[in-house]
Amino acid sequence: MKHRYLITGVSGFVAGHFLNLLAQKQDCESVLGVDIQLAAAKPYPFPFQTQILNLLDSAAVEALLLEYRPTRILHLASFSNVGASWKAPAESFTNNTNIFLNLIEPLRRSGLSARVLSVGSSEEYGSVGLDELPLVETRPLSPESPYGVARVAQEQLSRVFAQGYGMDIIMTRSFNHIGPGQRDQFVVPSFVKQVALSALSKSRHCRVRTGNTKVIRDFLDVRDVVDAYWELFERGRSGEVYNVCSGTGRSLDQILEALGEIAGIDVSSETDASLIRPNELMAVVGSALKLKNETDWSAKISFEQSLKDLVAHWKEIVIMERTK
Amino acid sequence: MKHRYLITGVSGFVAGHFLNLLAQKQDCESVLGVDIQLAAAKPYPFPFQTQILNLLDSAAVEALLLEYRPTRILHLASFSNVGASWKAPAESFTNNTNIFLNLIEPLRRSGLSARVLSVGSSEEYGSVGLDELPLVETRPLSPESPYGVARVAQEQLSRVFAQGYGMDIIMTRSFNHIGPGQRDQFVVPSFVKQVALSALSKSRHCRVRTGNTKVIRDFLDVRDVVDAYWELFERGRSGEVYNVCSGTGRSLDQILEALGEIAGIDVSSETDASLIRPNELMAVVGSALKLKNETDWSAKISFEQSLKDLVAHWKEIVIMERTK
Repeated sequence: MKHRYLITGVSGFVAGHFLNLLAQKQDCESVLGVDIQLAAAKPYPFPFQTQILNLLDSAAVEALLLEYRPTRILHLASFSNVGASWKAPAESFTNNTNIFLNLIEPLRRSGLSARVLSVGSSEEYGSVGLDELPLVETRPLSPESPYGVARVAQEQLSRVFAQGYGMDIIMTRSFNHIGPGQRDQFVVPSFVKQVALSALSKSRHCRVRTGNTKVIRDFLDVRDVVDAYWELFERGRSGEVYNVCSGTGRSLDQILEALGEIAGIDVSSETDASLIRPNELMAVVGSALKLKNETDWSAKISFEQSLKDLVAHWKEIVIMERTK
Repeated sequence: MKHRYLITGVSGFVAGHFLNLLAQKQDCESVLGVDIQLAAAKPYPFPFQTQILNLLDSAAVEALLLEYRPTRILHLASFSNVGASWKAPAESFTNNTNIFLNLIEPLRRSGLSARVLSVGSSEEYGSVGLDELPLVETRPLSPESPYGVARVAQEQLSRVFAQGYGMDIIMTRSFNHIGPGQRDQFVVPSFVKQVALSALSKSRHCRVRTGNTKVIRDFLDVRDVVDAYWELFERGRSGEVYNVCSGTGRSLDQILEALGEIAGIDVSSETDASLIRPNELMAVVGSALKLKNETDWSAKISFEQSLKDLVAHWKEIVIMERTK
């Protein structure tokens, strides 16, 4: 069967990689991408259109669903910055939970039978003891940031809509992503950019401005992330939630060290108080067993390869910015 | 210390009883009540004003907070009908979670140090086995209705705002209420009204239209509910959640039987398919131990007394409506 994909947040980092993946698959009748602002569209080997759409405008969302009649909806649109959610909790909530409700509620009313992938976050778990890692999907959720609360609400609404109305919705708790295209307001690209700048200016040392570098996170290459999303469309069970993660925890200190080795320079860290967040979770590492057991997914890109690709990518960007 | 109370949802059933309670307490400097529509105000032995306010209008909420400077906020405003939340899930969500966020976010920005009582619901728990009853506050939440999801989000936001920003917010999970003033869209008053009508028309039998009468709920008299809210203002711990319940489960069948005895008529039930809800929880009974241990609260009104008062109350209403 060929699918009519709808992708929200199409201008974002993850959507670009999902489109690259679809270009390799044979299941795509067409793709409609929506976002509040659009980047220049690349060519793809399938009909691809983009459209400005504010998901807070529920009437516009409903009209679009009835017109396009998607069979698969990848919901990536999100106010996804945990730190920023502390500065603007109401906006974080509205632009996660309410936009999702504005998508699934007209879908419910319309009776269209699209499969929805509701992307959530490891922030839903909240803080746990090291002995409770890796996190499994059955663990009670205890979100500790405004963003985490919004994501839990999105997931619980998904479950209620799947079980109560019989809708076809699959949920993820996606852990940290790394890969080309992520903006440098996120932690790893911000590190890599600073290291790339130093390497290109022939410095031997790079002092990276950081928050708390002891925190441990589970990073998965974005190309493996989108592969998991496609597998979940194919084989996931409606109303179920799946961790999307590597299963390995790495501290930010370890990442800084690895970046130094790749770039061939000495990297140290300098704490910037403005980057320290309230309620920061100390260690977040997931188990990908459910995803692996129920789909054909496995991670294909090593962490070292991800970082190498990322350093090369940021060197290119820095050079391009300089020659502008 | 005397308090400046702000009560949202002041036109509702619970607010009326809380105002009656404040009339007996000596801690009230003034009360401002807000709602989207106002009923005729009764006189109270303290300065009492009411005002139309739509909590979805965050600018108006902020202006009101800065003007009135409350020291205690009882947040009762809610789209609180579980059945209706299945018909209008988006409205249920907006009119529970978003209105709460519109209250606490300007409160946070203003730096006012009010204590907030965030009223939640037993619907947050979701369905459990009979062997897991009574429900204690540490039990993982697994809401199974749009309303339940909205209430979980409200509670989790309360905790995040208390822990992350140091705000003074106490949460409840309030179980079913009974008592004079509750509208007959709720189950017990709808039963009592039908029984009162039959009793007044000298019928010997009353066939009550019901949903599933096997479901078991934990009913607490509204006068004991508001007493718990006042105790929590006095002695509750910020960031903590408290069940507000009787601790005793009663099936709707038992209530019908008790009503028949009080009214002196034969009561039977007739299932109305439109009253059967998706995902209905079979048994919901709470433990009030935490509330009892941490405050001076105990329930003072027996279930039988509640039902007697309710039958008398609805007989009066039915007679009044007839003589109009």
